[in-house]
Amino acid sequence: MRYILGVDGGGTKTTCLLANEEGCILKRIVSGPSNPESVGEKKAKENLSQAIKTTLKGQKVEVICLGLAGVDLPEDAEKAYRFVKRLKVAKKIIVENDGIIALSGATVCKPGVVVSAGTGAIVFGLNKAGEKTRASGWGYILGDEGSGYDIARRGIIAAIKALDGRGENTSLLNKIPQYFNQPSIISVALWVYSSDFQLDKMAGLSPVITEAAREGDKVAQEVIREAAKELALAAGAVIKNLRMEKDEFEIACTGGVFKAKGLILSTFKSEVKKIAPQSKVIFPKFSAASGAVLMGLKEAGVELKGKVLKNISSRRMSLRAERNVIASRRRSNLKVLYTSSLDPSGNSKEDT
Amino acid sequence: MRYILGVDGGGTKTTCLLANEEGCILKRIVSGPSNPESVGEKKAKENLSQAIKTTLKGQKVEVICLGLAGVDLPEDAEKAYRFVKRLKVAKKIIVENDGIIALSGATVCKPGVVVSAGTGAIVFGLNKAGEKTRASGWGYILGDEGSGYDIARRGIIAAIKALDGRGENTSLLNKIPQYFNQPSIISVALWVYSSDFQLDKMAGLSPVITEAAREGDKVAQEVIREAAKELALAAGAVIKNLRMEKDEFEIACTGGVFKAKGLILSTFKSEVKKIAPQSKVIFPKFSAASGAVLMGLKEAGVELKGKVLKNISSRRMSLRAERNVIASRRRSNLKVLYTSSLDPSGNSKEDT
Repeated sequence: MRYILGVDGGGTKTTCLLANEEGCILKRIVSGPSNPESVGEKKAKENLSQAIKTTLKGQKVEVICLGLAGVDLPEDAEKAYRFVKRLKVAKKIIVENDGIIALSGATVCKPGVVVSAGTGAIVFGLNKAGEKTRASGWGYILGDEGSGYDIARRGIIAAIKALDGRGENTSLLNKIPQYFNQPSIISVALWVYSSDFQLDKMAGLSPVITEAAREGDKVAQEVIREAAKELALAAGAVIKNLRMEKDEFEIACTGGVFKAKGLILSTFKSEVKKIAPQSKVIFPKFSAASGAVLMGLKEAGVELKGKVLKNISSRRMSLRAERNVIASRRRSNLKVLYTSSLDPSGNSKEDT
Repeated sequence: MRYILGVDGGGTKTTCLLANEEGCILKRIVSGPSNPESVGEKKAKENLSQAIKTTLKGQKVEVICLGLAGVDLPEDAEKAYRFVKRLKVAKKIIVENDGIIALSGATVCKPGVVVSAGTGAIVFGLNKAGEKTRASGWGYILGDEGSGYDIARRGIIAAIKALDGRGENTSLLNKIPQYFNQPSIISVALWVYSSDFQLDKMAGLSPVITEAAREGDKVAQEVIREAAKELALAAGAVIKNLRMEKDEFEIACTGGVFKAKGLILSTFKSEVKKIAPQSKVIFPKFSAASGAVLMGLKEAGVELKGKVLKNISSRRMSLRAERNVIASRRRSNLKVLYTSSLDPSGNSKEDT
């Protein structure tokens, strides 16, 4: 039996999935971040090799497929490739940006587009010819339009403009301070410039804007519509750059922003339909880590259909039940955040 | 003869002007910053009292008028008042936000509006009834729309969107990296997130966007138009809040952004004319520090006209010649950046 290791290396954690060639996920390890931009190169390498070694425990695999945040340029990929090669754990090594494995998971390695809108926002696409491209994802100052952070920022600005008399009155003037447990929007503004400020705390406000929009607040609705249009603009750029306007393909929406569905999803859908009428907006079929496994399986010559996909799916289902255990472990703040193994039947068995 | 001390206390420097009741500026001292938000309360107080003491050298004045950055709330003003009172240098003390003295200088204490667009942007207004208000000025993350920083940021985003295929092509894609001496817009984007990043360095890019707009670049023109509209929106909010739509008054434009004149000024003018058709867009008559002197003179019962204004003006003219000396002194990085005295005739005489 041949094995595949899929790695999703991000700025907050690194997820490793060990699968056999039938798509059965045998083990799942979640370790510290492996994005050099967030933890530095040394720590990123340490976390990555620890995650891989903890998962494999000396075992070798046919293919290791890594999707790594911060791998934007060919030289980044080359560097990561050489590092993983030295670990001597796999016959074949694939190194990609984490957006590519997210895309592969979302569309099961088919041509398509993945729009990720969490704290940040980025769009990746793959066409029939195997060409890949991206748009947005330029960070919280210059890009990430339509992300949770961006929606939060637009919401606070809208409230401030209402206060100044530069904009229409809005329920956000009360809702935003309430959410942050602050006495006023001015205190919220001061917090944004304080040392206590964090991007993800700010992004956490985004559901409050969505709620206000759902309740009929016109200003909040405009913020959500603008965000949706920005996400569609980025998706549209990827579609045009890959000449996919007339193709049938899936656009997978992922990240906290799309969880709100409602106005953001409906506006996004109607906007992308203008660019690619044959496209279909979906939620991802598999996670980014599973996407890495799928790419690894494809590289090993395994056909991605039937039982293989069912095996990955069944694992995916069982993970839901596992999450409560995971959440409680996370609180203990272990370097290896959580680890579990499964027998090929898909029954969860903890492996501490 | 009675004397007036005008103080402009900002985030980069503190300017003191000593005048007699005829409006003759007798001495000018520029010292370190006195904004507690930029240098901390202790240092701000030190710089402020040093600036005042260096200017007065034991002399007492009729009125001291201070315009201090960071004085936003009544309690800030009260605190600054108590601190200055302990210095025992003046019979009367006026404490205002630095925007108010800028307004007073710009319009010679008449009802009006001052729009300041430098690295940041803020608008202050004063109506016939003596009511004051402000808009914008919420800093680089949440506000300051139309500022040099904002124009620079919008320009970089426009270039990035062109690169991604999300926006029209623009000469900014070449001009921006050239300005920062970087190989590409991607390197510029990386710099924005680096520890080397500074707001004023970023704002320094704004004339490049203006230049591209002047050369006919449509994308740059749109950036400038948006900035002008934001500044007009803030001015309009102040005008409406003070019920000045039908009044005749002056809107004074100050800061590096307006130095470019051209598209930004013409768009701003046409936008504010829609709100207040009787208003007149001007450049400030006097500096913020002179505005503090004017407020002090007014408090002392001096009429702000004729010879008094001529005396302040002649000082203002002579300062231009003085600036070369000032610039060379600044390089020596003294805590008291520069100091000069004038005899009442207005002839400059250095006082080191």
